[in-house]
Amino acid sequence: MQTPNLQQKLNKFRSNKIFETFVIFIIIFSALVIGAKTYDISPGTLWLVHILDWLITFIFLTEIIIRFIGEENKRQFFKHGWNIFDTLIVVVSLIPVEDSELAIIGRLIRIFRVLRMVSIIPELKMLLNSLLIALPQLGYIVALMFIIFYIYAAIGSTFFAAINPQLWADITISMLTLFRVMTFEDWTDVMYETMEVYPLSWIYYLTFIFFTAFAFLNMVIGVVVNVLNEEHEKERKIEEDSKNPMSIEDLDKKIDELKELMLQQRSTSGG
Amino acid sequence: MQTPNLQQKLNKFRSNKIFETFVIFIIIFSALVIGAKTYDISPGTLWLVHILDWLITFIFLTEIIIRFIGEENKRQFFKHGWNIFDTLIVVVSLIPVEDSELAIIGRLIRIFRVLRMVSIIPELKMLLNSLLIALPQLGYIVALMFIIFYIYAAIGSTFFAAINPQLWADITISMLTLFRVMTFEDWTDVMYETMEVYPLSWIYYLTFIFFTAFAFLNMVIGVVVNVLNEEHEKERKIEEDSKNPMSIEDLDKKIDELKELMLQQRSTSGG
Amino acid sequence: MQTPNLQQKLNKFRSNKIFETFVIFIIIFSALVIGAKTYDISPGTLWLVHILDWLITFIFLTEIIIRFIGEENKRQFFKHGWNIFDTLIVVVSLIPVEDSELAIIGRLIRIFRVLRMVSIIPELKMLLNSLLIALPQLGYIVALMFIIFYIYAAIGSTFFAAINPQLWADITISMLTLFRVMTFEDWTDVMYETMEVYPLSWIYYLTFIFFTAFAFLNMVIGVVVNVLNEEHEKERKIEEDSKNPMSIEDLDKKIDELKELMLQQRSTSGG
Amino acid sequence: MQTPNLQQKLNKFRSNKIFETFVIFIIIFSALVIGAKTYDISPGTLWLVHILDWLITFIFLTEIIIRFIGEENKRQFFKHGWNIFDTLIVVVSLIPVEDSELAIIGRLIRIFRVLRMVSIIPELKMLLNSLLIALPQLGYIVALMFIIFYIYAAIGSTFFAAINPQLWADITISMLTLFRVMTFEDWTDVMYETMEVYPLSWIYYLTFIFFTAFAFLNMVIGVVVNVLNEEHEKERKIEEDSKNPMSIEDLDKKIDELKELMLQQRSTSGG
Repeated sequence: MQTPNLQQKLNKFRSNKIFETFVIFIIIFSALVIGAKTYDISPGTLWLVHILDWLITFIFLTEIIIRFIGEENKRQFFKHGWNIFDTLIVVVSLIPVEDSELAIIGRLIRIFRVLRMVSIIPELKMLLNSLLIALPQLGYIVALMFIIFYIYAAIGSTFFAAINPQLWADITISMLTLFRVMTFEDWTDVMYETMEVYPLSWIYYLTFIFFTAFAFLNMVIGVVVNVLNEEHEKERKIEEDSKNPMSIEDLDKKIDELKELMLQQRSTSGG
Repeated sequence: MQTPNLQQKLNKFRSNKIFETFVIFIIIFSALVIGAKTYDISPGTLWLVHILDWLITFIFLTEIIIRFIGEENKRQFFKHGWNIFDTLIVVVSLIPVEDSELAIIGRLIRIFRVLRMVSIIPELKMLLNSLLIALPQLGYIVALMFIIFYIYAAIGSTFFAAINPQLWADITISMLTLFRVMTFEDWTDVMYETMEVYPLSWIYYLTFIFFTAFAFLNMVIGVVVNVLNEEHEKERKIEEDSKNPMSIEDLDKKIDELKELMLQQRSTSGG
Repeated sequence: MQTPNLQQKLNKFRSNKIFETFVIFIIIFSALVIGAKTYDISPGTLWLVHILDWLITFIFLTEIIIRFIGEENKRQFFKHGWNIFDTLIVVVSLIPVEDSELAIIGRLIRIFRVLRMVSIIPELKMLLNSLLIALPQLGYIVALMFIIFYIYAAIGSTFFAAINPQLWADITISMLTLFRVMTFEDWTDVMYETMEVYPLSWIYYLTFIFFTAFAFLNMVIGVVVNVLNEEHEKERKIEEDSKNPMSIEDLDKKIDELKELMLQQRSTSGG
Repeated sequence: MQTPNLQQKLNKFRSNKIFETFVIFIIIFSALVIGAKTYDISPGTLWLVHILDWLITFIFLTEIIIRFIGEENKRQFFKHGWNIFDTLIVVVSLIPVEDSELAIIGRLIRIFRVLRMVSIIPELKMLLNSLLIALPQLGYIVALMFIIFYIYAAIGSTFFAAINPQLWADITISMLTLFRVMTFEDWTDVMYETMEVYPLSWIYYLTFIFFTAFAFLNMVIGVVVNVLNEEHEKERKIEEDSKNPMSIEDLDKKIDELKELMLQQRSTSGG
C-alpha cells in the first residue's frame, strides 16, 4: 500500500515551519479581508487571497481523506474528538460564503473557517486540551465567587435599589453592577452616588473589592501550583528512570556477596 | 445500631457527583428566581423550583439530624465550627421567606440559603479554610499599605485640600481618593486637576502608584512562595518516607562488619 | 547590672501579641482621629485616645533609653539604621502636634507618628528590608521601560502634537500620556482622537500596550524567580547540613581501607 | 600589541558602576532636555549637558574602534548582532540633531541616541535577549487569542452593527472594540448600549472577558513555568557537576576490585 508513505509526506509537508507560517498568514488575511469592508483592497489582491484560501482548503481536504484511508479501522476514526473537529472544519469550509443567502449562516461559516488554524497548528490543539483540563478546577472558585457576589448583591439591592434602580433594582442586576465594580469600571461613580445617602457605604465597596481580589488571587495561585506540580511530577519520573542503572540497593547486594565470600574463605582456611 | 449505615448511605448519596451538580443548580436557580423580579418565569416553573428547593432543605435537615444522632458525644458535636455552620444554615432555611414581614430579614434568610452551597461542596469548605489560614499572613502587608496610604494622604490633604475639597478635604477622604487612584479609576482626572496648580504633582501620583503596585506585587509573591513551600514540604516528606528502606548509613554499617570480619580472619590466619 | 533583665522584660512585654495589637489599634485610631475633621467624635473619646497615644510614646521612649543604656559600645548604637530610625521616631513623637504653628510641620510630625508602627512590628522591618533589597533588581527593568516610553513618546509627539497639544506637546508630556495609556485610563479616548487623523494609529497604541505589558510581566517573573531561588538556596543548605553525618566520600575511604587490609593480608599469607 | 590591554582598561572603565550610573544619568537627562520644550533650563546647564553628551558619544566611538581593531577576524566582527547594533548607534549618534532639516529625521536620531543605554548596560542586553527568546513562545497564545477575538467579533458585528456602527461596523472594528472591552476601558458603556436592544447581551461580554482573562492567565503561567524550568535545569547541571568527584558508580567499581582480590586470594590460599 502506498497511502502511508503519501500520508507521511503530506504530514512532513504540513508540519514544515515555512508552510505552516504561510498558511496561518493566508487564513488570518483571508479572515480579515472578508470581514472588513472599510479598507480598500485592489481586486487583484482579493482574487489572489481567494485562490490561496481555496488552495489551503483543498490541501486540508486531501490530507483528511488520506488520513481516513490510512486508518485501518474506519469506525475508530470518528471516535477521536479532533478527527471529527478537523472533518467538520473542512466540510464547512467547502460551503461557499458568497452563495449563502442568510447573513448569519455566512458569518457562522466564516467563524468556522478561522478554526482551520487549530487544525494546522498541533501546539494549539495541545493548548486547547490543557485549557479544557483546567476548566473543572475553576468550578469551585466560580462557586465561591457566586456566593460572594450573591451576598453583596442581596445587601446592595436592599439598601441601594431606591437610590439608583438602573444599577440595583434586583439581585441579578446588582450582580452585574458588582461585576462592573470588580473590573474597576467607573466604580467610584457608583460609590459616590450611594455615599450621598449612606456615607459609610465605601466599606461595602472596599470589602467587596478586597474579597473578590483575594479569591481571584487564590484562583491564580491554585492554577499555578497545579501546573508546577504536574511539571515536577514529570521531571521526577524522568530523573528516577535515569537513576536506575546503579543504586544503593545494588551496592548493598554486592557487599553482601563479599561478606559471604569472606565467610566461605574463613571456613576453608580454618578447616 | 443502624444509624451509621444510614449515615454512610446518605453521605454516599450526597457526595454523588450528579446529585451534587443537581443540588447546586437548584440552589443557584432558586436564589436567582427569588432575587430577580424583572424576568418573566411561568408560575409552573416557579412552583417546581420551590418544591425542589424545599426538598433539598429537607434532605439537609435529615442529614444533619442523622449526623447528630450518629455522634456518640453530643457535646462534642457543636465544638466543630462546620457542624454549627451546617445546623445554622438548615435552621434558617426552614424559616419561610414569603412569611417574613420585614424585607431585611427576608433578605438575610435568602443570603443564608445560598450558603447551603458551602455545606454541600466539601471542596468549598477546604477552600474557605485555606483562605482563613492565609488571612493573617496578609496582616503585615495591610499595615505597610496603611502607612503608605497615610503618608500620601497626609501630603495630599495638605497641598490639594484647597483645590478640590471633595477629594482631599481631610486624611480619611484623601485615603479613599488614593484607593481610587490605586485602582486606576479616572485617576488622570484627579491628577490633571492638581497639575494645574502644582505642575510637578504628577511625581506624587506616579510614585504612589509605583509604591502600592510594588507592595501589592510583594503580597502576591509572598502568598505564592508560602503556598509553594508548603507543597514542597509535603512532597519531601513523602519522598523521605519512600527512601527509608536503604540508606548510605546502612551501607556504612555493613562495610564496618566486613572490616571486622577481615581483621578477625587476619588474626586467626596469623595465629 | 539590672538593665539587661529590665530590657528583656520590656522586650517580652512589647512582643506580646495582645499588647502589639492594642498599640497598633491606638496608633491607627489616633492617626485617623487627628486626620479626620468630618466625623463627630465625643470629647471624652478624643481625650482617652490622646492619653493612650502619649502613653505609647512614653513606653517607646523608655524602651529606647533602656536599649541605649544596655548597649555596651555607645558609638556602635547609632551605626544600626533601625536604631537611628527608632530614636528619630520617638524624638519627633515627643513634639506636641497642637503647639506647632505651621500646618506643614504639624503634618510632618503626624506622618512620623504613624511610622511608630514600623518600630513596634518587627515583621514590618523585615518586610521593608526585603523591599529595599529587591529595589535595585528592578533598576534594569525601569531602564528598559524608559527606553520603550521614550521611543513611543518621540513618535507620539512628532505625529500627534498638532492633534492635541495637551497630551502630546513634547516628549515629557507624551510620556505622561503613555503612562496613562499603560494604566488603561480612558486610553480609547486618546486613541479615537488620533485615529480620526491617522486611521492606522491603533497599531501604535496596541503595540505599546503589548510591549509594556510584556516588559512588566517579565519584571514580575524576574522577581518571583529571584525570591523562589533564594528560598531554594536556603532549603538546600539546610538539607545539606542534615546530610553531613555520612556521605559517599566517607564510604569510599572505608572501602579503600578494606582493600589495603586485604592486600596486607595477602602479602602476609603469601609470605 | 598594546590594543588588548587598552581594551581591557577601557572595558574596566566602562563597567565601573559610578561611571555607568553617570553615563545613564547624562543620557536620560540629555534625552529629556532635548525632548521637553516647556521647562525653563538655564543655557549654561544646557551647554554642559550637550558637552557631556558629546563626550559620551566620543567614549563610545573610541571603545567600538578599539574593539574592532582588537578583533582578529574583521569579517567575524559584523556577524554578531550586538556589534552591528553598537556600531549603528554610535554612527547615528554622530549626526548632529540641530543640523537636521527634517523634523522626523531629528526625532529618529534622538530615538537612536537613547538606545545607547542598551550599549552601556550589559544586563539590558541580556534582558532584551531573554525577551527575544520568549517571544516565539507567545506565538501560539496570540493565535488562540486571535481566534477568540475573531469569533466574538463576527458575532458582535452581526448583531450590534445596527446599534452602533462606530464600534461594530465590521469585523476589524469589532476586534478593536473587543480589545477595549478586554482592557475594561468604559466597557459597561458599550454593554449598556447593546443591552437596550438585546437584554441578554451581557452574556456575550461576560463570557468574552472570562475567556480572554483565562487565556491570558495561561500565557502568564506558561511563561513562568518555562522560566522556572530553565532555572531548575541550570541548577541541576551545577549540582551534578559538583557531585562528579565521587559517585555510586565509582564505589561499585571499587567493590568489584575488592571481590576480584578476594577471589584471587582464595585461589592462592587454596592452592
